[in-house]
Amino acid sequence: MSVRFELAPWMAAQLAAVEHALDTWVSIATTAGVGHRAPADLMAAMRYAVQGGGKRLRPLLVLAAAQATGAPAGQGAALRAACASELIHAYSLVHDDMPCMDNDVLRRGKPTVHVQFGEAVALLAGDALQALAFELLTPDVDVISAAQQAQLCRLLSRAAGCAGMAGGQAIDLASVGLNLTEAQLREMHRLKTGELLQASVMMGAACGSASAQSLVGLQTYGAAIGLAFQVVDDILDVTADSATLGKTAGKDAAANKPTYVSLMGLSAATAYAQNLHDQAVRALADSGLADVQALQALADLVVNRSC
Amino acid sequence: MSVRFELAPWMAAQLAAVEHALDTWVSIATTAGVGHRAPADLMAAMRYAVQGGGKRLRPLLVLAAAQATGAPAGQGAALRAACASELIHAYSLVHDDMPCMDNDVLRRGKPTVHVQFGEAVALLAGDALQALAFELLTPDVDVISAAQQAQLCRLLSRAAGCAGMAGGQAIDLASVGLNLTEAQLREMHRLKTGELLQASVMMGAACGSASAQSLVGLQTYGAAIGLAFQVVDDILDVTADSATLGKTAGKDAAANKPTYVSLMGLSAATAYAQNLHDQAVRALADSGLADVQALQALADLVVNRSC
Repeated sequence: MSVRFELAPWMAAQLAAVEHALDTWVSIATTAGVGHRAPADLMAAMRYAVQGGGKRLRPLLVLAAAQATGAPAGQGAALRAACASELIHAYSLVHDDMPCMDNDVLRRGKPTVHVQFGEAVALLAGDALQALAFELLTPDVDVISAAQQAQLCRLLSRAAGCAGMAGGQAIDLASVGLNLTEAQLREMHRLKTGELLQASVMMGAACGSASAQSLVGLQTYGAAIGLAFQVVDDILDVTADSATLGKTAGKDAAANKPTYVSLMGLSAATAYAQNLHDQAVRALADSGLADVQALQALADLVVNRSC
Repeated sequence: MSVRFELAPWMAAQLAAVEHALDTWVSIATTAGVGHRAPADLMAAMRYAVQGGGKRLRPLLVLAAAQATGAPAGQGAALRAACASELIHAYSLVHDDMPCMDNDVLRRGKPTVHVQFGEAVALLAGDALQALAFELLTPDVDVISAAQQAQLCRLLSRAAGCAGMAGGQAIDLASVGLNLTEAQLREMHRLKTGELLQASVMMGAACGSASAQSLVGLQTYGAAIGLAFQVVDDILDVTADSATLGKTAGKDAAANKPTYVSLMGLSAATAYAQNLHDQAVRALADSGLADVQALQALADLVVNRSC
């Protein structure tokens, strides 16, 4: 008898583990190894940037892919990889909110890090969170094999750097007010958000074991939901209100930023998101992996979310 | 017959290899993997930040320690580690020069990165250079063993993060105008510059092989020259002119920043630098390593430099 997969209890369990691990590791990192004049502001800013929320989509993708590839559950490689991916995301938000970038004063209803701690501390907190991601992936203790540590650092550094997230941010900056083609818009988002989402899936797989065919399936899945995430973001920017979103709705249009909705129209963008969802689900079926229910449920969540 | 070690030709050869490798790897990273709308500004800013100079002390320490521990010369682990360490240093200068930090408009006689490319691009270029350091340490090709890749990422991430360079910067920010004790000043500099200099030595050693005793010796050496470097910096801020330094002399005093000279006086600070030099040289002798001439010559260079 097959048991229907329930996303809610799975997510609750994973999120509890991730929140606990983030709290623990960021606290350890920000209190240990530093002498009597601990830079209290920096440490507080790092904790503030990581705590209190967000969807934790990247950790969930890591943990779902780890489960699909038979990685051991618990305190090991997968949980570290999940937190490392979230630290990269968290640092990017801190820097992205700064006055020289998007100049946002609120995130998730709270003052942004530079508003709360000043710009200099926000800059350093982002820098230190990026380093901490790689610290988490390379523990002294033998909970992750050296080969896995190297592979996790390889995947994460490429997704974060100039051919990944930072590169996408730079294209985004340079694109305000320009007429992009759909191919150009897709390339920007592939780098800006897609690479880290896809890398999260592949980092999860690096914690387990998977055939070449399964890795190709997971790569296709990761690319499709990475893009779908952004298309849905653009749709919600038009259709949702600020209270539901937890951020200012209609901001992209106001900033004259190209979006999937401005390019394709709302109806075609909605159909495109559904199409990407179906691509992701098909890739899972083709992967030959058995335990893909969590990954499938996350694909549903990405496309059907309301915030 | 023992051959006297000549620092100048050794340095010239190492620097040529480092400059070539930095050029190559930063160029590859900033042109490959990115589609038709390459973020040209970001790539140019990254190259600008890395090219054109500096003493390249961190790469030299990596390569000297690699040589002392019998690491293979050439294109392998040591050269990647040397460049990775320099990329972390380069990114820290880009962020440190920004208006919200030191607000410097000139570095090495050229406009700083944010002056040349704008603040947003400078922020992202620093972020991407940090990621690139970890990319360099985790190549797909099999030039570094997985165990070495993991160890190099471990050493570098800890030296760069909140218990290293970023933490030291935060203490520095918070210390302007305060009366620090010598212990507090030493702790600040240990984090801000010492950890990365020491990590450079240990990264070199991770590329070769060394006994536990040798590693302790190298650690002591790295800590001593890391601190000596900063003491000499403080001395030069008082005794050298801006043209020789290539940066504004007397800046620390003008900014009311605590220094070794303000705390100890010039004469005691000079004696302290010499004492640290001697500690470093003794640690090399105690390390049991044979080929330490380059490391010894770099200790001389750090203390006797005029800029």
